[in-house]
Amino acid sequence: MLTLYFTPGTCALASHIALEEAGAEYAIRRVNFASEEQRQAPYLEINPKGRVPALVTDRGILTETPAILAFIAQSYPAAHLAPLDDAFAFAEVQAFNAYLCATVHVAHAHRMRGRRWTDDEAAIEALKRGVPRSVGSCFALIDTTLFRGPWVMGEAYSICDPYLFTLSQWLEADGVDLAAFPRVLDHRTRMAERAAVVRALAAERAPAT
Amino acid sequence: MLTLYFTPGTCALASHIALEEAGAEYAIRRVNFASEEQRQAPYLEINPKGRVPALVTDRGILTETPAILAFIAQSYPAAHLAPLDDAFAFAEVQAFNAYLCATVHVAHAHRMRGRRWTDDEAAIEALKRGVPRSVGSCFALIDTTLFRGPWVMGEAYSICDPYLFTLSQWLEADGVDLAAFPRVLDHRTRMAERAAVVRALAAERAPAT
Repeated sequence: MLTLYFTPGTCALASHIALEEAGAEYAIRRVNFASEEQRQAPYLEINPKGRVPALVTDRGILTETPAILAFIAQSYPAAHLAPLDDAFAFAEVQAFNAYLCATVHVAHAHRMRGRRWTDDEAAIEALKRGVPRSVGSCFALIDTTLFRGPWVMGEAYSICDPYLFTLSQWLEADGVDLAAFPRVLDHRTRMAERAAVVRALAAERAPAT
Repeated sequence: MLTLYFTPGTCALASHIALEEAGAEYAIRRVNFASEEQRQAPYLEINPKGRVPALVTDRGILTETPAILAFIAQSYPAAHLAPLDDAFAFAEVQAFNAYLCATVHVAHAHRMRGRRWTDDEAAIEALKRGVPRSVGSCFALIDTTLFRGPWVMGEAYSICDPYLFTLSQWLEADGVDLAAFPRVLDHRTRMAERAAVVRALAAERAPAT
């Protein structure tokens, strides 16, 4: 049995959608960022980094979206969420997800999480102002170059798709004009109609229990 | 045949060491950051992100250190560089590498690459000042919690080890006191003695051809 620790509106949505796509049996547990639950001892026992997602398994706890996504793909091979029998194609999937994790998500994080890197208030404000440019340039590269269509990796839907969908949720709040990225926008629209996405978003939005 | 595009002193060293550990046949090609070769058209054809490493293969080009490391491990299974038959253990390896890529390397990058996120000169200086704290807190977590010993993942050497070694090369320049992290320091010392590491470092330091 799996339990996904998540917070609505975070990158945990990618793993949540992937679990739905995989047909996994799992539970979800909400982590309350408003009360800083992620920085308190009980949650730090689960993820000492104080972040979401964390996936509790019978074997132990996994963190980091790219690792969790690949784990889901490998654990539910019948769902065909990654090219598991082709090391090169699998590496292409992983490279795209690493870019989302280490460059795109990081660019976005400078809007709300500047304190990770500085305690200078003026610098934190400057980082916020930089987000439309830095996030915009990431999505320009995705739209023009990395995205193959109709899915991220081409004909085959993969664990890249829920991850891109998740990060593309943030574009408006990041001050990026989505109209500049028609392929990402079309992908986001099609993703939002998938049953797995509808279910994951509805579960995120349900009252906390 | 593989060709690794690298620049001395960058995270490309991790992939370079892994290729040596795997016994791979490969060539290396130096990218000259001093002349900004990474931002010029010929190199952008190889990696449109303008970064190293890039691994040219017969199938196409791979980027992103965690993806390249897993590709090497999967392509050379006899080298036992990752637990390929155990999705959970493989995900633990990937989670550690994702942390190095998206949190540790990113913290370090605020010393030299602040311009990625802001063009405000005072903010760029503030980001530099924040590096000892942010990088230091990452290595504190690694030293106390994530690192199992004697290798990152415990008894088995893996693709986590060259990556941690590579990032731990930067600690002094980042203003972090290594004495606070005895396990990382011991790991770095033992890694530096491995034949694969000696060979990769010697090749990086050889005159450019």
